[in-house]
Amino acid sequence: MGKVFVIGIGPGGEDYMTPAAREGIMSSDVIIGYKTYIDLIRPILGDKRVIDSGMKREIERCSLAIDLAEEGHTVALVSSGDPGIYGMAGAVLEVKGEKNSPIEIEVIPGVTAVSAAAAVLGAPLMHDFAVISLSDLLTDWDVIKKRLQLGAEGDFVIALYNPKSKGRVTQIEEARDIMLQHRKKETPVGIVRNAKRRGEEVIITTLGEMLNHSIDMLTMVIIGNSNSFIQDGKIITPRGYHL
Amino acid sequence: MGKVFVIGIGPGGEDYMTPAAREGIMSSDVIIGYKTYIDLIRPILGDKRVIDSGMKREIERCSLAIDLAEEGHTVALVSSGDPGIYGMAGAVLEVKGEKNSPIEIEVIPGVTAVSAAAAVLGAPLMHDFAVISLSDLLTDWDVIKKRLQLGAEGDFVIALYNPKSKGRVTQIEEARDIMLQHRKKETPVGIVRNAKRRGEEVIITTLGEMLNHSIDMLTMVIIGNSNSFIQDGKIITPRGYHL
Repeated sequence: MGKVFVIGIGPGGEDYMTPAAREGIMSSDVIIGYKTYIDLIRPILGDKRVIDSGMKREIERCSLAIDLAEEGHTVALVSSGDPGIYGMAGAVLEVKGEKNSPIEIEVIPGVTAVSAAAAVLGAPLMHDFAVISLSDLLTDWDVIKKRLQLGAEGDFVIALYNPKSKGRVTQIEEARDIMLQHRKKETPVGIVRNAKRRGEEVIITTLGEMLNHSIDMLTMVIIGNSNSFIQDGKIITPRGYHL
Repeated sequence: MGKVFVIGIGPGGEDYMTPAAREGIMSSDVIIGYKTYIDLIRPILGDKRVIDSGMKREIERCSLAIDLAEEGHTVALVSSGDPGIYGMAGAVLEVKGEKNSPIEIEVIPGVTAVSAAAAVLGAPLMHDFAVISLSDLLTDWDVIKKRLQLGAEGDFVIALYNPKSKGRVTQIEEARDIMLQHRKKETPVGIVRNAKRRGEEVIITTLGEMLNHSIDMLTMVIIGNSNSFIQDGKIITPRGYHL
């Protein structure tokens, strides 16, 4: 009986891949992942069997990983960032349940995109924060909107995953409008594309101005709380505060 | 002119310290940190100058780091997890501002405690989540309570940092009661102590039963959303859902 590792390689470069992630990949004989992520780690894969596939094939990849493990293989299912945050950890455990498979699944956490983006921006997350995906592919937009409203009302720092894609452009505008009902237009906003990997782009702006900048699926948007401020081109959220 | 690295070493063991964190430590000639964290990385420090201090000396450590950098040293300010999440990144940038120092500060993100705990529990975070610290040392309890209420109402998965300390025991009880106003007592709860490091302890329980287990400052508590379920001793939050 084999095993499935669900491995987070972090932002992308080898400098943020943990030794545990590398060891999990090295001890596997089959590597499965979305092509873009596989390409990031190609240099360390040697002659291992590699199965890469396009996006939106998550369930297929999970199912294949479990089947191969049942045949005796050690399989590494790789994704960028942390597989436990909008990654593959949940899907593979769900598929394991559906297949009623006894395969052992080990999740190896990685540096998640929100940590990478925050590091580049300075220290925007230092207080309580909410992480919200704006993708309404699997979740009703009403649920997401409610979370944006409550997150804004609670003065959480807000980190937005999947803010915008080619076919999905209005959600980030609505999100911004919801935030503006609770926060000043001067509230600091950080927009980071390809955080801590090749092609990194960083914009420090405000809630009022954020839509004037380019945002896509490779972008993380972090909206400060009522106490966040900009200093020397960095966003800082103070660690503590009173009402 | 020197430089300050603010380095997240991850959960503690060398297997989760990124090459970037190690490189930052190696290229520094002074290492500053809370004694417990310094001890975790002592094996790689060689004969570097090490300044360790007790807890609650954060501002002092930040001030010292900046002073030493101004004298020409390269200083590594180390903390566990990710320094951008309840870590040292914000404090050192705030102190830099107060001192009006021109020193460059680079934040090196790490695997944060919530990612480590989630990996051990299975996949509890897979949907939108809120991260809340129950420590009211620097923040009014009313602010924290409001966030717990709104987070519960928004059906966020909730991750609680600093759930309890020797002198602070009622907050986790109030937090649990607030959650119970919005979620069933069968809601899965994961309690992880020393996630992904020596002495790891994992408990999978429910909102109704969680207070029957030991919780302290080294513990992360993760409370599932309305769709989270337990399967084979793991907590899974489905990736998507409808109202």
